[in-house]
Amino acid sequence: MFEKDMRLAYLLDFYGEALDKRTYDIMQAYYDDDLSLAEIADGEGISRQGVRHIIKKGEEQLDFLENKLGLATFYTELKSAVKKIDAVKQNISNGENQQQSLELLSEVISVILSR
Amino acid sequence: MFEKDMRLAYLLDFYGEALDKRTYDIMQAYYDDDLSLAEIADGEGISRQGVRHIIKKGEEQLDFLENKLGLATFYTELKSAVKKIDAVKQNISNGENQQQSLELLSEVISVILSR
Repeated sequence: MFEKDMRLAYLLDFYGEALDKRTYDIMQAYYDDDLSLAEIADGEGISRQGVRHIIKKGEEQLDFLENKLGLATFYTELKSAVKKIDAVKQNISNGENQQQSLELLSEVISVILSR
Repeated sequence: MFEKDMRLAYLLDFYGEALDKRTYDIMQAYYDDDLSLAEIADGEGISRQGVRHIIKKGEEQLDFLENKLGLATFYTELKSAVKKIDAVKQNISNGENQQQSLELLSEVISVILSR
């Protein structure tokens, strides 16, 4: 659990504003600024165990939100849709691949409406 | 506050899974099934005031999530992006309006990346 997990860093970026401010700050120090538990404990004036507890609770809240809402996963799919839209722009600029363009746009629409 | 508010019905649809189950069920009865406070109170075996309190707390949670995360607003923008993608499909099928298609696709990309 205490390997720094890129998935949790992403969820923190996505849902972090919904955490209480202290939990958010501590998780940001841990995940984004890559501080150790000991360094955060020093800064906060609490025990290393206390920091670990706050991060664990925050991780549970982030997992809860994503398990219930699935919005981070949805947004990841949207970003891959952007690549398809870019391919269509390229096709239009080159005046080619009309059928492929239509298929890509249909895929993008179905991703957006999947939510 | 107790006019039934379509915005809250939409937020309930969007974030409802993150509420506790009882609050979600009561809010769904109120917003989606359009039951009155008195009808819900009868069904739950609690006072009308109790139902009002649960709904108010639920509304605060939904507002909190949307104020912090803004994902329902973002999704509304995505759905309007779908209309633009449809217009581009039409343009491609008709073999026309290349410049307009490129502009519409750029708008869609910027909506998706705005989050």
